Amino acid sequence: MQLKTPSQSRSTQTEIVLPNDTNNLKNLMGGRLLHWMDIVAAISAQRHSGRSCVTASVNNVSFGHPIPQASIVTLEANVSRSFSSSMEVIIDVWIEDMQNGKKTKCNEAIYTFVAVDNTNKPTSVPAINPETDLEKERFDAALRRRQLSLILAGKMKAEEATELKALFNK
Amino acid sequence: MQLKTPSQSRSTQTEIVLPNDTNNLKNLMGGRLLHWMDIVAAISAQRHSGRSCVTASVNNVSFGHPIPQASIVTLEANVSRSFSSSMEVIIDVWIEDMQNGKKTKCNEAIYTFVAVDNTNKPTSVPAINPETDLEKERFDAALRRRQLSLILAGKMKAEEATELKALFNK
Amino acid sequence: MQLKTPSQSRSTQTEIVLPNDTNNLKNLMGGRLLHWMDIVAAISAQRHSGRSCVTASVNNVSFGHPIPQASIVTLEANVSRSFSSSMEVIIDVWIEDMQNGKKTKCNEAIYTFVAVDNTNKPTSVPAINPETDLEKERFDAALRRRQLSLILAGKMKAEEATELKALFNK
Amino acid sequence: MQLKTPSQSRSTQTEIVLPNDTNNLKNLMGGRLLHWMDIVAAISAQRHSGRSCVTASVNNVSFGHPIPQASIVTLEANVSRSFSSSMEVIIDVWIEDMQNGKKTKCNEAIYTFVAVDNTNKPTSVPAINPETDLEKERFDAALRRRQLSLILAGKMKAEEATELKALFNK
Amino acid sequence: MQLKTPSQSRSTQTEIVLPNDTNNLKNLMGGRLLHWMDIVAAISAQRHSGRSCVTASVNNVSFGHPIPQASIVTLEANVSRSFSSSMEVIIDVWIEDMQNGKKTKCNEAIYTFVAVDNTNKPTSVPAINPETDLEKERFDAALRRRQLSLILAGKMKAEEATELKALFNK
Amino acid sequence: MQLKTPSQSRSTQTEIVLPNDTNNLKNLMGGRLLHWMDIVAAISAQRHSGRSCVTASVNNVSFGHPIPQASIVTLEANVSRSFSSSMEVIIDVWIEDMQNGKKTKCNEAIYTFVAVDNTNKPTSVPAINPETDLEKERFDAALRRRQLSLILAGKMKAEEATELKALFNK
Repeated sequence: MQLKTPSQSRSTQTEIVLPNDTNNLKNLMGGRLLHWMDIVAAISAQRHSGRSCVTASVNNVSFGHPIPQASIVTLEANVSRSFSSSMEVIIDVWIEDMQNGKKTKCNEAIYTFVAVDNTNKPTSVPAINPETDLEKERFDAALRRRQLSLILAGKMKAEEATELKALFNK
Repeated sequence: MQLKTPSQSRSTQTEIVLPNDTNNLKNLMGGRLLHWMDIVAAISAQRHSGRSCVTASVNNVSFGHPIPQASIVTLEANVSRSFSSSMEVIIDVWIEDMQNGKKTKCNEAIYTFVAVDNTNKPTSVPAINPETDLEKERFDAALRRRQLSLILAGKMKAEEATELKALFNK
Repeated sequence: MQLKTPSQSRSTQTEIVLPNDTNNLKNLMGGRLLHWMDIVAAISAQRHSGRSCVTASVNNVSFGHPIPQASIVTLEANVSRSFSSSMEVIIDVWIEDMQNGKKTKCNEAIYTFVAVDNTNKPTSVPAINPETDLEKERFDAALRRRQLSLILAGKMKAEEATELKALFNK
Repeated sequence: MQLKTPSQSRSTQTEIVLPNDTNNLKNLMGGRLLHWMDIVAAISAQRHSGRSCVTASVNNVSFGHPIPQASIVTLEANVSRSFSSSMEVIIDVWIEDMQNGKKTKCNEAIYTFVAVDNTNKPTSVPAINPETDLEKERFDAALRRRQLSLILAGKMKAEEATELKALFNK
Repeated sequence: MQLKTPSQSRSTQTEIVLPNDTNNLKNLMGGRLLHWMDIVAAISAQRHSGRSCVTASVNNVSFGHPIPQASIVTLEANVSRSFSSSMEVIIDVWIEDMQNGKKTKCNEAIYTFVAVDNTNKPTSVPAINPETDLEKERFDAALRRRQLSLILAGKMKAEEATELKALFNK
Repeated sequence: MQLKTPSQSRSTQTEIVLPNDTNNLKNLMGGRLLHWMDIVAAISAQRHSGRSCVTASVNNVSFGHPIPQASIVTLEANVSRSFSSSMEVIIDVWIEDMQNGKKTKCNEAIYTFVAVDNTNKPTSVPAINPETDLEKERFDAALRRRQLSLILAGKMKAEEATELKALFNK
C-alpha cells in the first residue's frame, strides 16, 4: 500500500459562531466545537483511507481561549500518523480578527479514527510520509501518544514503552 | 466551603438517535455524542459549583460500541473530583435493549470544567466527598490523571508525580 | 402479562434553554417544551411496553411559569396507567436555581401513547401497579381523564362515566 | 376595542416531513407537529392581538392519522374566541396527495395564548366576531371548553358551568 | 395535459425570525431566506406537477430590506410559467408590522424547478393559464428570462431571442 | 485603499450531506446548498472588506449535478470583483469520490454582498487585483454581469452597457 502525505488528507472548515452555538457567557460551547472537530477530522480520515471511518477515541483536547459569538472559526485537520487500520488526526483551530485578518491559534485536538470496509470490519490504511518539520514532529509524538494510550488501557506494559519510560526515569 | 458528594451533582440525559445523528453506517456519529456529553457534564459541573462553567479539556474518550440509529441512549454525569476552580466530570453512557430493558454500558468519558464568577474569572468550588467504592476509585484516579495532564502540558516535572512515576519504574 | 411499576418506566431529561429555544421575551417557547415532553414521554412509554410507541393525544398542558433563557430544565416522565394498548404518561417539569440548587416545579403535562407491533398494529401492554401515594392518585385520575376524553370524542355516553357524573351532579 | 374576525388572524404554514422529523416507523413524530402547531398558532394570536403572545395551555390534541416521511403538511390557525387577555386558537392540519392534490384533514388541535404588553403583563385583546357556520360553532364550543378547563383547574364550580352541566344531567 | 392556473400551485409559509437565523446585525441571514424560499417554491412546483421536483436554478434574487429578528415573515410561491418539464416559480416575501398588521413586500425571487418521474428522469408538466394581470405579466416576462438564461448558457443565439434583442437595439 | 487579490479572501468549507439535507430522491436539497454557499461567501466578503457584510443579491445559480446523501461537498468562495461598497463573490462546489479522491465540479454560483460600517451604512471596500487567468476572466465578466443587473433593475440604459450591447448587435 502506498505512502501518503498529511497534506493529501487535509480538510478545512470555516464556521461562524451563531447564537445557538454559545453558552451563557456568549462564547462558543465546548460541545459544539467538539462536534465540528469530529466532522472535519472524519473527512480527513476518509480522504486518507478512501474508506468510511468511525471515531475511535478523542485524546486530550484543551480549550484555552474563549471564542466569542460571531467569530469566524477555521478548523484544519491532517492525518498525523496511521497504525494498521487506525489514524491519528490532529485538528488545529484558529479565530481571525475581522478587521486586520490576523489569525490566532486557539485550540489543538487529537482524535483517532478507524477505517472500515463494506462489512464494517477494520481495514488497513496507507502509511503516512511526513514532509514538513511540524509533520515530522507530530508523526513522532503520535507513537508516544499511542503507547501511553495502550498502557492506560492495559494493553501494553509500561516497560515496553521505551520512549515514555525515558520520560519518567530521568 | 462545604464538601459535596458526587450524587449531588448527578445529571441524567436520555436521547433517541435520530437519522441526522448518524453516519453512513447508520450509527451515532462520534461528534454528536461528544456534544451531548458536554451538555450533560456542564450541567453536572454547574450543579456542583453553583456557577457558570466552561469546558476546559476533554480527556481520553473511547468509542467502543457502535450505537445504531433509533437507540435510546442514557448519559449520566457526576463530578468525580474538584481542584480549586476546576472539576473533573465522568460521563457514563448506556444503551438499552427496548424489548427486555437491559442496559449495556457503551462509553465512558472524562471532561474537565472550570467555574467562573460574574466577571468570567475562575472561582473556587466545593471539594468532593466520595461515598461509594466506585466514587472513591474515581476520586483517586482523578489525581493521577491531573498529574499526567500537567506533565504533558509541561506544567509539572515527571519526578514530582509520585504515583505516575511508580507506574513506569516497576 | 406481568404488572410493572411507574418507576420502571421512569425517564429523565435535562436541557439547557438556548437562544433558539426562546421567544421575543427571552423565555422558553411553548412549542419547544412540547417537543421535549414528547420525546421523554415516548421513551417512558417504550420502556414500559418494550415496543415502539406513537403519540396518540396530548391532554391539557398548562404553561404556568415562564422559563428564562439559560435555565436548566429537568423533565421526568412516568407511565401513570395503561389501557389495553395505550398508556397515559405524566411529565413533570422543574427548573432549578443554579446558586442554591433549589428545584421549582413549573409544568405538568399528560400525553397518551399507543404501543405498536412490527406490523404497526396496536399491541397490548403490561398493566401498571402504582406504589407511592402520588402514583396511586394519578392512577385513579387517569381513569376519569380517559372517560372524559371518550365522552368528548363521542365514544362513551356521559351517564356511563360514573365518576365524572358525580362531579357534575353534586 | 374593535371586533375582529377569525380570518383576520388566519396563519398558514406548509412543511415537508424530513428524515429528522420522523420516528422509527418513518412517520412524523408527535412532538415535532406540536412544535409546528405552536409556532403557527402563536403567529395567529399575535395577528389578532397586535401583541407578543405566550402559550398558556394546550387542550386535547389527537393524532389520528400517521403522517409519512416526505409528506406535504399544511397547518392553518385561526383565533376561535378571545377572553379578556387570552385567545383560543384552533389549528387544522392536512396532508395532500401529491399526484391528485387531494387534501386530507389529519389533525385538529386547540391551544390557548395570552397577550402581554411591554412589561410582560397580560393585556386585553379584541373580541371575536365569527362569520361562517364553522367559526360560529367553534366560538360557542370555546366557552364550554373554557368552563371545563376552569372546573378541572378548581377555579370554577361545576354547578356554575351551565352548558357542561346539561351534558352530564341528561 | 390540462392547463392549470398559478393559484392552483400557490404555497404559503409563515416563519418567525429566531436568533439563529440572524447575522451579527440581528437581521435575517440571506442564506436562511434562500433556504425557506427553496422549500416553499418546491412545494408549489410539486403541487403544479404532481411530481417530485428538484431545484434547477436560482435567478436573480435581491435582498432589499433588512428583516430584523423576531419579524413574522410570509412567503408565497406561485408557478409563473412552465416549459416542457421545467417550471419557473416566483416567491414573494412580506414582513408585517405586528401592531397594525400592515404587510410590507421585502423580497421577490425566481427559482426554476424540474419535475422528475420515478426513474429520476425529467417529465412533462401542465402548461400555465395565467388569470390576473400580475400573473399575465409574469407569464410573459418568464419567456424573456428563459431566453436570456439560454443565451448566457450558450444554448441559444442572441439574434434568435427576439424580445431581448429589441431591448438592446433601441 | 489598497488592492487585494482574490486568494486573500478565499474561504473553504467542507460538508457531509446528512439525511436531513436531502430531498425525497436522497439528493442534497437546493435550499441547503444555497444556505451553505451564503455562509462561505459571506466569510469571503468579510475577509476582503474587514467589515460585516450582508447578502445583496444572488445571481444565476445552476444545479447541474445531483449530490447524493453522504457525499463530501467542498465549497470555495473568492471575491471576483468589488464595486465601491459591494463585492461579487463566486462560489465553486465540488464533490469527491471517496475511493480515489477525484474531485468533480458540480456547481458554480455568484452572490453579491455589501459591506456595512458600525452604523449599518454601506462603506467602501478594497479593489480587486486579479492574478490568475481564471481570476482575470471572472473579473472582466463581473462588469458585464453588473451592467446586465443594472439594466434589468432599470438603473442603467441598455445603450450605455457597451459590452452587453455588442453581444446582441452582432
